[in-house]
Formats: sequence, C-alpha cells, structure tokens
Amino acid sequence: MAQSPLQIKLHSVIFGTGTKAGKRFDVALIYAIVLSVLAMMLESIGAIERAYGPWLYGVEWAFTAIFTVEYLLRIYCSPNPWRYIRSFYGLVDLLAILPSYLGLFVADMNYLLMIRLLRVLRIFRVLKLVRYLSEANILMRAMMMSRRKILVFFSSVLVLATIFGSLMFVVEGPEHGFTSIPKSIYWTIVTITTVGYGDITPQTSLGQLIAAAAMLTGYSIIAVPTGILTAELTTEMQRERSLRRCSECSSAGHDSDALYCKQCGSTLTD
Amino acid sequence: MAQSPLQIKLHSVIFGTGTKAGKRFDVALIYAIVLSVLAMMLESIGAIERAYGPWLYGVEWAFTAIFTVEYLLRIYCSPNPWRYIRSFYGLVDLLAILPSYLGLFVADMNYLLMIRLLRVLRIFRVLKLVRYLSEANILMRAMMMSRRKILVFFSSVLVLATIFGSLMFVVEGPEHGFTSIPKSIYWTIVTITTVGYGDITPQTSLGQLIAAAAMLTGYSIIAVPTGILTAELTTEMQRERSLRRCSECSSAGHDSDALYCKQCGSTLTD
Amino acid sequence: MAQSPLQIKLHSVIFGTGTKAGKRFDVALIYAIVLSVLAMMLESIGAIERAYGPWLYGVEWAFTAIFTVEYLLRIYCSPNPWRYIRSFYGLVDLLAILPSYLGLFVADMNYLLMIRLLRVLRIFRVLKLVRYLSEANILMRAMMMSRRKILVFFSSVLVLATIFGSLMFVVEGPEHGFTSIPKSIYWTIVTITTVGYGDITPQTSLGQLIAAAAMLTGYSIIAVPTGILTAELTTEMQRERSLRRCSECSSAGHDSDALYCKQCGSTLTD
Amino acid sequence: MAQSPLQIKLHSVIFGTGTKAGKRFDVALIYAIVLSVLAMMLESIGAIERAYGPWLYGVEWAFTAIFTVEYLLRIYCSPNPWRYIRSFYGLVDLLAILPSYLGLFVADMNYLLMIRLLRVLRIFRVLKLVRYLSEANILMRAMMMSRRKILVFFSSVLVLATIFGSLMFVVEGPEHGFTSIPKSIYWTIVTITTVGYGDITPQTSLGQLIAAAAMLTGYSIIAVPTGILTAELTTEMQRERSLRRCSECSSAGHDSDALYCKQCGSTLTD
Repeated sequence: MAQSPLQIKLHSVIFGTGTKAGKRFDVALIYAIVLSVLAMMLESIGAIERAYGPWLYGVEWAFTAIFTVEYLLRIYCSPNPWRYIRSFYGLVDLLAILPSYLGLFVADMNYLLMIRLLRVLRIFRVLKLVRYLSEANILMRAMMMSRRKILVFFSSVLVLATIFGSLMFVVEGPEHGFTSIPKSIYWTIVTITTVGYGDITPQTSLGQLIAAAAMLTGYSIIAVPTGILTAELTTEMQRERSLRRCSECSSAGHDSDALYCKQCGSTLTD
Repeated sequence: MAQSPLQIKLHSVIFGTGTKAGKRFDVALIYAIVLSVLAMMLESIGAIERAYGPWLYGVEWAFTAIFTVEYLLRIYCSPNPWRYIRSFYGLVDLLAILPSYLGLFVADMNYLLMIRLLRVLRIFRVLKLVRYLSEANILMRAMMMSRRKILVFFSSVLVLATIFGSLMFVVEGPEHGFTSIPKSIYWTIVTITTVGYGDITPQTSLGQLIAAAAMLTGYSIIAVPTGILTAELTTEMQRERSLRRCSECSSAGHDSDALYCKQCGSTLTD
Repeated sequence: MAQSPLQIKLHSVIFGTGTKAGKRFDVALIYAIVLSVLAMMLESIGAIERAYGPWLYGVEWAFTAIFTVEYLLRIYCSPNPWRYIRSFYGLVDLLAILPSYLGLFVADMNYLLMIRLLRVLRIFRVLKLVRYLSEANILMRAMMMSRRKILVFFSSVLVLATIFGSLMFVVEGPEHGFTSIPKSIYWTIVTITTVGYGDITPQTSLGQLIAAAAMLTGYSIIAVPTGILTAELTTEMQRERSLRRCSECSSAGHDSDALYCKQCGSTLTD
Repeated sequence: MAQSPLQIKLHSVIFGTGTKAGKRFDVALIYAIVLSVLAMMLESIGAIERAYGPWLYGVEWAFTAIFTVEYLLRIYCSPNPWRYIRSFYGLVDLLAILPSYLGLFVADMNYLLMIRLLRVLRIFRVLKLVRYLSEANILMRAMMMSRRKILVFFSSVLVLATIFGSLMFVVEGPEHGFTSIPKSIYWTIVTITTVGYGDITPQTSLGQLIAAAAMLTGYSIIAVPTGILTAELTTEMQRERSLRRCSECSSAGHDSDALYCKQCGSTLTD
C-alpha cells in the first residue's frame, strides 16, 4: 500500500530523528513521559493525593489521551503497521496507555503506568548523534559475548541457593522464621547477594555456621560475573583498537593514530 | 565380565547422550528431578501441606521409586558398577533417594532430598553439543589456576575474622549480643562480607570504631578475589583467542603478532 | 594592576608550595582544618557539649576568625582576585566560614562547617612533590574516559529502580511499609546496592520473589562499573608504561614490541 | 659472639624449615597454636565455661608455658637476639604470651591471646616449598605498586563519609538515632560499604534521598579499588611472562614455554 504525503510527513516527524521537527518531537515526548511519571509518583503519596487527587487524576488522563493519540498516529503513518505493533517499542507504547483504561475496572492498575518510563529509553535514539550509543554498543556486545558464561553462572547460583535454603529449612525450622523452603531460598538469596535485611536470621549455632559459609560463598562468587565482564570488555576494547591491518605484512594491533606499520614500516592506508 | 546386549543397549540410553533415545532419557530425567524438587518445596509450605499433604507424599514416593529403579539400572548396565557407585554422580544418585527411606525412621530427613537438585547438573552433559561446557571450562581453568592465590586469600580472611571477632568480644561483651567468640566471629563474617543483618550490632563507641575498620577492610579486600580471577580470566581468554597453530609442529598459543613459531622456529603462515 | 612586593611575598607563601615558608603554611593550615573539624565533632556529642560547650564554641569562633583572615588575605594577594573567588577552592574557602556567620541567625547551621574538610584536599597540592597527584591523575583520566559509559549505566539503574519500586508499591502496598512510590524507589535502591537495611522488607510471597529478582539484578550489575573502570584503567596504565619515544619525531606511545616508529616510519632505537 | 653447637642445632630446628626436624617443629607449633585458640573459643562460651572452666583454664596455662619456653629458646639460639625480639614475628611471639600474665591482674585480658592466631601466618613459611609464597608475592607486589592509589582512594572515602555524616546529622538529628557526628559517620560507613545493619536508618524524605545518594556512591566507588588492583595484577602477571628477552633481537614478551624468538626466529637461551 502506497503511503500518502501526510503519512510520509508524519513518519519523518514521529519516527525520524534526522530532521529538526523530528528531534523536537522526541524531546517533547521525553518531557511528557517524565512529567506523567512524576505526576504518578506524587499521586502515590497519601498526603498529596488527599489534597490534589482530582488534579493529578486529570493530569494522568490528559497524558493518557496524548499518548493514545500518539500511538494511533504511529500506527497510521507506519509503512508496515503490524510490524510496528509487534516491535519492542510498539508493545511498550501500548503498555504505556493500557493500565489507564484497565484502571477504570480494576483498582491500583494505574500505577503500572510507570512502565511509561521504559519509553524514555528512546532518549538514546535522540542522542544518537553523540557517542552514547556506541558506548552502549560496546557494553551490549561484551554482554552478548559473555551471555553463555553468565547463564552458567546464574544457574549455579540458583542451584546453590536452593540447596542452602533447604539445608537452613531443616536446620533452623519454622520456629526461627524459616517457615518454608521457598522462604528459605528467599533468605539465601538475601544472604548470598550480601543484601542482608535481617528480617530472618539464623538463631542456632549450626545455622550460623551454614550462614557464614553462604556469605563467604556469595562474597567470593561476585568475583565471577565481574571477572567475566571485565575480561570480555578489556578484550573488546583492545579489539576495537586492533582492527587496523597493514596491507603489506597484514600485521594487526596498530593504534588508531598510527601512520606506519610497526612490523614492516610501510604506510598504513586506512 | 562381558556385557549382554541388553546391558549395552541400556547403557547407551542411560549414560549416553549421543543417540536420540539417550538425549530424550536425559531430558525426561531433568523434568522428573525439577518436578520432584517442586513437589518438596510445596510440601514445605504449611498451608499447602495441610490441604494436599497426602497427594504430595504420594508424588514424593513415586519419584523416589522412579529414581531407585533408575539407580539400580545404572548399576546393572554399567561396565564397571563399582566405579560408578563411587563416582561423584553415583554418590549424588544414591543421596537423591536415601533420605526418603531414612525419613521413614527420622523426621524431616525427607527435605534433604533437595540434594536431588545436584542431579540437574547433568543438564550440562545434555547441552554438551552447544558451547556451554567450553565456557564452563574456561571458568574452571581460570579458577584452578588461581586456586592457590584464593586459598591464601581465604586463610587471611579467616584469621582476620577470628582476630576482629575476639577483639569485639572483649570490647562489647555478652551484654551487647556478643555472647561468645564463635558468635563474634559470625558477626565479623556478617560484617566483612558486607551482608550486615543487624541482629547483632556494636553499641559502644569503641566497638563502632572497630566495626567501621572491619567494614572498610571487608569492602577493600573484596577487590582481591575479583582482581585475581579477572587477571587470570583475561589471560586465559587471550590465550584461547590466540590459538594459532604452527603448520610444521602444530604447537599452539602463538601471539597474534608472532612471525615465527616459538617451538620450532619455522615461519607461521596464517 | 601591578602587585606590591608584599602581595607577591604573601602570594608565594599562601598559594605557593615551592618555598619552605609556603610548604609550612600549607601544613599549618591542614592542622588547623583537622582541629576545627574535630572540635565540631566533639561539640555534636551531647555529653561533651554540656560539659565543655562554651570552650568548644570559643574554639569554633577562633578558627572561623583565622580562616576569615586567611580568606581575605588570599583575595588581597591574588593577582586576579575575581578568578580566585569563583574558582573551586575559592568557593570552598568561602563556604568554610559562611555557616559560622549564618549560625548566628539560624540554628544548627554551624554543623555545615564540616565542609571545611574539603579544604583538606589541598593536601594533595602539598604532596605534589611525591607522585600522589600523578596517581590521582591516572584515576581521573580513566574516569573521564569512561564517563559516558558510566552515565549510560547510571540512567539504566535509575530507570530500573523506578520500575521495580512501582511494582513493589502495587504488590506490597502501604500496609507493608511501601507507603508511596518514592519510598518504594528508596527501598529498591537500598536493595539493588545490596545495602539492605531491613527497615522495609517485602512480606508477601510475590513481593519476595520480585525482591529476589531485584537483588540478583543488583548483584550482577555491580560488575558493569567495575568492568568499565578496570578495562579503562588497564588500557591507561599499559599506555603510560609503554611511553616509548621515537628519537626522530619524538612521538610517544609505541608498543613494547614495535620495531619502527608508527608516526614517521624510522627505526626505534630503544 | 660465637654460637655454641647447641645453639646452632636449636636454631636449625626452631627457625629453619629446610631439615626434617625443623619442618616437624613448625607443624607441631601450628597444631599447638590452633588448639590453644580453640580452647579459648570454647572458654568464651558461657555454658561450656561453667562446665569445664577449670580444665580449659589449665589448657590455657599449659600452652602459655609451652609458648613461653619456646620464646625464651628462640631468644637463646638466635645469633642476634635483639634483632629477633624487635622483628615482626618476635613481637607477635611476645604478644602471644603476654595477655596470659596480664590476665592475672586485669580481667578479660586473656581473650587477647587470640593474637596467637597471627603466629599461624608462619604456616606460609612451612609451605615455602610449594608455590604459595610466590603467589602471595605477586599479590603483595601488586598491592605495593597500587598503595599510593589506594591511599588516595581511602582518604577520599573518609572525607566523603565525614561530609555525608555531618549532613545526615543536620538533616535527621538526634531524634532519629543520629545522636552525634561520629555516630553519623559510623552510619555513613555502614551505608557506603553496603553493609547496612539497619540499627540506624533515615526517617525523613530528605534523609532517605541523601542516603540513596550515599548508597549509589558507595556502590560505584567499590569499582575503584577493584579496578586498581586488577589492572595492577594483570600488568604484573603479564610482566612475569614478558621477562624473557631474545639475545639476538632483544624483543620481549616470549611465553615461558617458547623455545624460539617470535620476532627473529633465533633460539631463546634462558
């Protein structure tokens, strides 16, 4: 289906970031998102809600109306509406207005509007011109490359937490707050991650010994994801640097400001 | 002792992962393990136990029966039964059924069945085809290479915890919760690992000063295992990456900028 | 405006660190700062304040007088007084005396005098002769180079904290201590940073599940700033170490195994 | 002063680790230290002390007698007694017996005997034959090389803690547990190091905002010592590797298993 000039014009404003109008639209959108999130935060505070409830309610619906119109316009001017609707941003855009309407029927649903904040991630699109995205890309690539190692790590942590949790359930028992295995696993995760609320604590000597072991384990294994990511990141950053090859001797690892090959002395071309 | 065809067939299904049947068996086993663990978790929750206790009891015994049969079959079809029984997985397989039978005589023993979860580690065998195991191998090797440094680190932490613990026992004393030196050591580990439950806290000024010193110590020395593992991991990954092989003597591990084989001195081609 | 000999002499003593008198002045100043800070600390302790209140009050005003004279002298002998007043240290010097005078009208203001401690940072200027500043410089440069990555990281943490916080507000609600979204965000930051006071804790099963997810997230993402800084620092330190200079064009930064200058192509001699 | 044969013999047993007798002596000593420490731990537990108090008291004095004899023998057989007495181990050896005698006059002094544990550090001397000490050496050297950076880091943390602490004292005040500036600094260190006991927590909104800022600061700056140590350790480990130089082309960076220079192909001699 061919697009009308209006659709093309709208598309460049709403989806584009290259033109001045497109950039302004995105900046305005981000302000609107942050304002609507702030309104909801204020609404959640009892004292403020009692004093200005109706006003904040009005603000919330005004933003919902604006975002609904924006969502419909996005569908209208998209060359492939269905693909937009199913995309990540399409889903976030829908979720950013849905709870308002559901809130008419179910109480407290409107607080889920905080998901609107995810839309702020578009900010990185606006900032594309500066180098933020390339930084995020290195981070992303390092994470993607270490995702298998991190998966292995996380499954080990969960298996560990389950076994420690069951052990503590048997040793401490319901009378010391370890009322069930899921709750004991919750306690183990609180302990291994070194959060340590202190709402449940071991009371028996054996329990405290096992807890100390869990703590030292958690304290040590935090080194694992850090080590993985750092090693990956160092390699990634060094690779960025070493992507230049000499056309004469095809040696790599030249600095980005090198003019001559450091192995054979011939001129570097790119 | 020669094996019968039945034994050979069974062995390839139960122990093997190369054939389709072998892989299916392992996947089914993992489902069974996870289900039996979930059943036990539910059983540990008071409300659910009161409502569905007999059902969950039945499920537990059904899985125990299945795992007992599987254990016997493994012994039967193993070419060297005794070696299997004494192997790591053989012991885990036994421990995964034993608490059920012991639970008939001693209360609460059945929760130790959570050790069944360790059997899930077999999952890495099933996933052998993808690269998870090789990732785990790099992690393993890096840990093995830094095990001496980590041992030195851990003994220092324990000595430190004991000395800080005794100091706090003398300074704070039983009236502030530091009832004995072992309990003070437990407190020190809670503090040094930055878990910080808050079930025991220093009350005197001197105690708080020592506690602050212990915290800063703990906060700093977490850098040590991280640094060790990261350095080891970086080296390991760079070696892995640089697995250039010499076409003459097929030795590996040449740096990416090496011109000659470091083992036989012939020119490196790629 | 030309400076009088007195101004030049004073300037070399007060601002300089090269002469003996200048160094002595700075050391005396640091002692005065630390003493005045200690006096204020003592004053904040109820029992001591009741016993020695007037004395400490006198000490505080004595130091305020000294620092006021010093501030005026600095303005007087500075070749460009306005630039000094607006500089970082100029503002700190002003803030270090202002609260005393404001404290005459508003209660408790005088404790803000603790900002005097910032003046101790001058100590690095005195220690310039040793290599402390160059160390701080490497740290600074590594941080500057990773500031974009760290900004991306911090905005992600804040967005994450807001979403987790809203979710917990809906799930747990005011009756379990999550009285508003800002307070829930406070709780989320307490949890993600693994501080874990335990003043607010999730009570429902769903809340504990979400809390466990938040903890594991926080436990993992601490790897990100560490990884970024370490990778940057390693690169920075290796560059520093490899400051080989070409004897022809005096360009620096050649790798330790480079044979030819990468800038002019001539052979490297050392 | 020439040493008698007895002194020489004793010296090789007590101070040496090369002979069989010397090694056995050290191992026996470590057992004695660990046992005496365990006895003291048991003594600190109320119930055990009431039941076996006199026995444990006897054990403590027996070990004190043994260690006193050992200390006197060390002085006797040392070629330079005075240097031994003032050495680190000499002081530890003295401190390991002193509290017993002081405990005759002052109560609770005997718990300071836990300092005996420091004597266990001698274990590294016994294990000298394996590579533990060389591992500890790399760690030590990396720490020594980064000591200036770590000093800069620690002073910044302390200044930061003092300023945050004073701020919280003004904002929260004594009625919320922040009774004095030293106590507020204690709270800040508990927070920045992510320990988070929860014995003192901010109650006002402004206090919680400042606390959240302190947490995020603490969460981020833990990256600094880790980054410093890791970078230093990586460099140190790579330097270990690159200490081999080719005698022909004097290029460095050869692996420890390299036989030929990777730059010029000639044989590596050492």
